[in-house]
Amino acid sequence: VKGEANLGAIGEFGLIDRIRAAVGAGTALVGIGDDAAVLENNGGPALLATVDMLVEGIHFPSDAPPHELGARALAVSLSDIAAMGGTPTASLVSLALPAETPLTYVDSVYRGLAEAAARWGTSIVGGNLSRSPGPRIIDVVQLGLVDRDRVALRSGAQPGDAVAVTGVLGWEAAERALTASEVRHFFRVPEPRLAAGRAVASQGLVTAMMDISDGLAADLHHLVSASGVGAVVYADRLPVAIQAREAGERSGGDALDFALYGGEDYELLMTVRSSQVQNAVEATAPVPLTVIGTVLPPEQGVTLETPGGQRRDLPPGGWRHF
Amino acid sequence: VKGEANLGAIGEFGLIDRIRAAVGAGTALVGIGDDAAVLENNGGPALLATVDMLVEGIHFPSDAPPHELGARALAVSLSDIAAMGGTPTASLVSLALPAETPLTYVDSVYRGLAEAAARWGTSIVGGNLSRSPGPRIIDVVQLGLVDRDRVALRSGAQPGDAVAVTGVLGWEAAERALTASEVRHFFRVPEPRLAAGRAVASQGLVTAMMDISDGLAADLHHLVSASGVGAVVYADRLPVAIQAREAGERSGGDALDFALYGGEDYELLMTVRSSQVQNAVEATAPVPLTVIGTVLPPEQGVTLETPGGQRRDLPPGGWRHF
Repeated sequence: VKGEANLGAIGEFGLIDRIRAAVGAGTALVGIGDDAAVLENNGGPALLATVDMLVEGIHFPSDAPPHELGARALAVSLSDIAAMGGTPTASLVSLALPAETPLTYVDSVYRGLAEAAARWGTSIVGGNLSRSPGPRIIDVVQLGLVDRDRVALRSGAQPGDAVAVTGVLGWEAAERALTASEVRHFFRVPEPRLAAGRAVASQGLVTAMMDISDGLAADLHHLVSASGVGAVVYADRLPVAIQAREAGERSGGDALDFALYGGEDYELLMTVRSSQVQNAVEATAPVPLTVIGTVLPPEQGVTLETPGGQRRDLPPGGWRHF
Repeated sequence: VKGEANLGAIGEFGLIDRIRAAVGAGTALVGIGDDAAVLENNGGPALLATVDMLVEGIHFPSDAPPHELGARALAVSLSDIAAMGGTPTASLVSLALPAETPLTYVDSVYRGLAEAAARWGTSIVGGNLSRSPGPRIIDVVQLGLVDRDRVALRSGAQPGDAVAVTGVLGWEAAERALTASEVRHFFRVPEPRLAAGRAVASQGLVTAMMDISDGLAADLHHLVSASGVGAVVYADRLPVAIQAREAGERSGGDALDFALYGGEDYELLMTVRSSQVQNAVEATAPVPLTVIGTVLPPEQGVTLETPGGQRRDLPPGGWRHF
């Protein structure tokens, strides 16, 4: 129908509000809108549950090596458990593949999954397998546990807290831009920050936390929106990946754009009370933790401060699902 | 590569063995190969987890009404919880849709999910939404709880037990065959047999149970294989849906084929000690429970007994995922 509103027009985040309105609050301790659902669990540690679907042509290229594809699918779901401060327990994997898929491909996907599961301390306990009429699809359900008093949500940031990120930003987006026109392939298996996330959450060092999948700017907007605050990011403090600098030079573009908008970093974005910053840095080690900004009152919005001290609006930008 | 083995050649069930070999036994109480994984859970009732992916063009037609599609996706995953004797607790829904999908379509899918969740006692607590390059995909993770001493597996059938099914068989397959060449559409939301499954499992009346999704013959093969037994099915005892008789007459085919091989019945297939049959019938009421066969020693295989008393081999047939 001409002019009818569609998904491409509204985008994912308008949709999440519609979904929440449609399905209601539910029985979860924490439901739709955080990295994972938090569920009551026989009075013991809370159950975490999250699911991520990767679709060929949208989330991974057709030539993604199957072993790494399996590992990446698991890593992406584990990153959500890390973002809650949780410990992974069990995974279920759904695969949909065209009938002509070679068995060696399927074996490689499962070997990648199994090795990644062993490495990151989860266990593949179920799932299913079906035919796809076209794209390959892999979907990982990840379960985990977290002390309900120590679960890290997106919603607890307070003005005055430090904004910090693990690792470096823009690596994957820049590497992909660099290799787009070359023969060599790039397909990364991100490292879910499980130990770092668990350490800062279990020690009560973070006021809010989430993982960076849509890009720092977009995900910071999600965090400040959930917390009802604003934030400033200091451009010269961002841990910009060396690949982003290289890609910026080659393209004549700005390395900062890869760090702010590249997405798929799978690092942790957290807010930390200013008195606890040193403890948080020690807790995440050997994973580097960098303070990149400050939480502000909501009326100050989300801004980027240049090395010269000017602040400009930092729009969410980032990867849009539609 | 010419001659290379592919998924279409090996089929789903050869693959499940390969997957089990690749990912190992894991930490689940019951892992890959039953209707749902059974997980240790803070020492309380065991956690059930299952996931089912529905892909447009494979598992549902393009003109499936979105409201019913949402409800059906939930029902199919709930049927796995019913088959374990469990109680559903929480659901996560992944959707992948083309960007041009109208918002009214998305709203209808979620309304269907929400109404079905309220009806069947689960709560939609999370999920995600992404773009698809082609087919619509809906994937429901269903969690549940079950008393670990009363969980119904596929593996406990003993020679001498009665084989029984809830409801009628062949309804959906026959209705689809009848309407294939007509203007009217057929798209069913199956009724997950939650109360019936919970009743027979919690009272310890079943020795094995599963749901019928691939067709009675195929799923009976799964059950006897997991239990290490054989079985005979009495053709004249099968609760053949009236639609299957009608479709058989119109097509000049055999109504029995719809009941044995049609698939997507989402009824429960169970084995019951012969002394407990009357109790099981009372426990599942008002859902009818029909004794259709007898569990035999493994060397007797799986056979169908005609009204004349002849037994012939009953091959699995049924829906193949590849």
